[in-house]
Amino acid sequence: MAHIELPISPQLGREFPGIVGPMTFRPETAAPLNELVNILLRGESTLSRCERELIATHVSWRNDCYFCQTIHGAVAAAQLNHDEALVQKVKTDWMHAKISAKLKTLLNIAGKVQQDGKLVTEADVAAARQEGATDLEIHDTVLIAAMFCMCNRYVDGLGTWAPQDPEVYRARAGEIVEYGYSVVTEMASTQVALPR
Amino acid sequence: MAHIELPISPQLGREFPGIVGPMTFRPETAAPLNELVNILLRGESTLSRCERELIATHVSWRNDCYFCQTIHGAVAAAQLNHDEALVQKVKTDWMHAKISAKLKTLLNIAGKVQQDGKLVTEADVAAARQEGATDLEIHDTVLIAAMFCMCNRYVDGLGTWAPQDPEVYRARAGEIVEYGYSVVTEMASTQVALPR
Repeated sequence: MAHIELPISPQLGREFPGIVGPMTFRPETAAPLNELVNILLRGESTLSRCERELIATHVSWRNDCYFCQTIHGAVAAAQLNHDEALVQKVKTDWMHAKISAKLKTLLNIAGKVQQDGKLVTEADVAAARQEGATDLEIHDTVLIAAMFCMCNRYVDGLGTWAPQDPEVYRARAGEIVEYGYSVVTEMASTQVALPR
Repeated sequence: MAHIELPISPQLGREFPGIVGPMTFRPETAAPLNELVNILLRGESTLSRCERELIATHVSWRNDCYFCQTIHGAVAAAQLNHDEALVQKVKTDWMHAKISAKLKTLLNIAGKVQQDGKLVTEADVAAARQEGATDLEIHDTVLIAAMFCMCNRYVDGLGTWAPQDPEVYRARAGEIVEYGYSVVTEMASTQVALPR
């Protein structure tokens, strides 16, 4: 049970898991939140969707948010030929993961933003530029990291539940890759009568 | 100078301060961000706008974000007959501030969300309900606190600058109280030619 009374999914017989629970409770805030997530993780960008999901996954792991690190890790893996070991490596030991040098410099910045934005130095940014990162890529890395510091706290601060079966996340990741984030929440919202 | 090249304000002869700088750089993400801020801080609610600004100010102070704690503190003070001492007390010693018992229970929850959402307990939520807080108020408190963990990192992670003169914040607070957050960013955006 979450800390507040959330809509019940008829299919699950309980609340929707993770961020979907509070999003079905408060559709007014879910709309701009989903729009922000869709633009940053799925919108036009010179960073691949997979790279952006890995940044989200790493930050969510740093914040110890089980739901977010697992669903975004599953979305990343779905775009990596299901290489879940690589996703795990990016969470815990990105410096030695088989990823591009550029992505490593961006994960360094994202990890600092997760702790405190003021820790990001000119040298961190120069290292990213050295590997070819553009200003827009640096901007989006900072905002993706910051956004997940919000989402992780939203999910955990309301005491939402998270499925433990990895298959649930793999299945949901397939839907997200195909349809995006808003659609998943919208589908959930149409299933419930809001309690307010 | 911020870590990335931001649009220059012709009036200031330099970048727009704080979050306005990156928002003029990336209007696509500024739109849903501003919408979220406007709904949570200014939309219809049983929490007063002043109470919600105090939650934002306290969280931004906890994150040591000078720009956000100063502008949102100024917006709160503008709605408290300019009682800046009370705003300062809510930042540093809210338990002994002259505010309602209900707001104290919400600031307790917000402060825990700032650290880690998982620190919020059933007892914290029960204490808020005891003082009359509704589920929607608890939800919005958690999301406001989480949102400022994003905004603070966005502002600081890109190395934006912040004016030091309190008069600047008082003047800007008056505009925000009257027109809202989006309008301030939109006015800034119309002044610049984007460098991208």
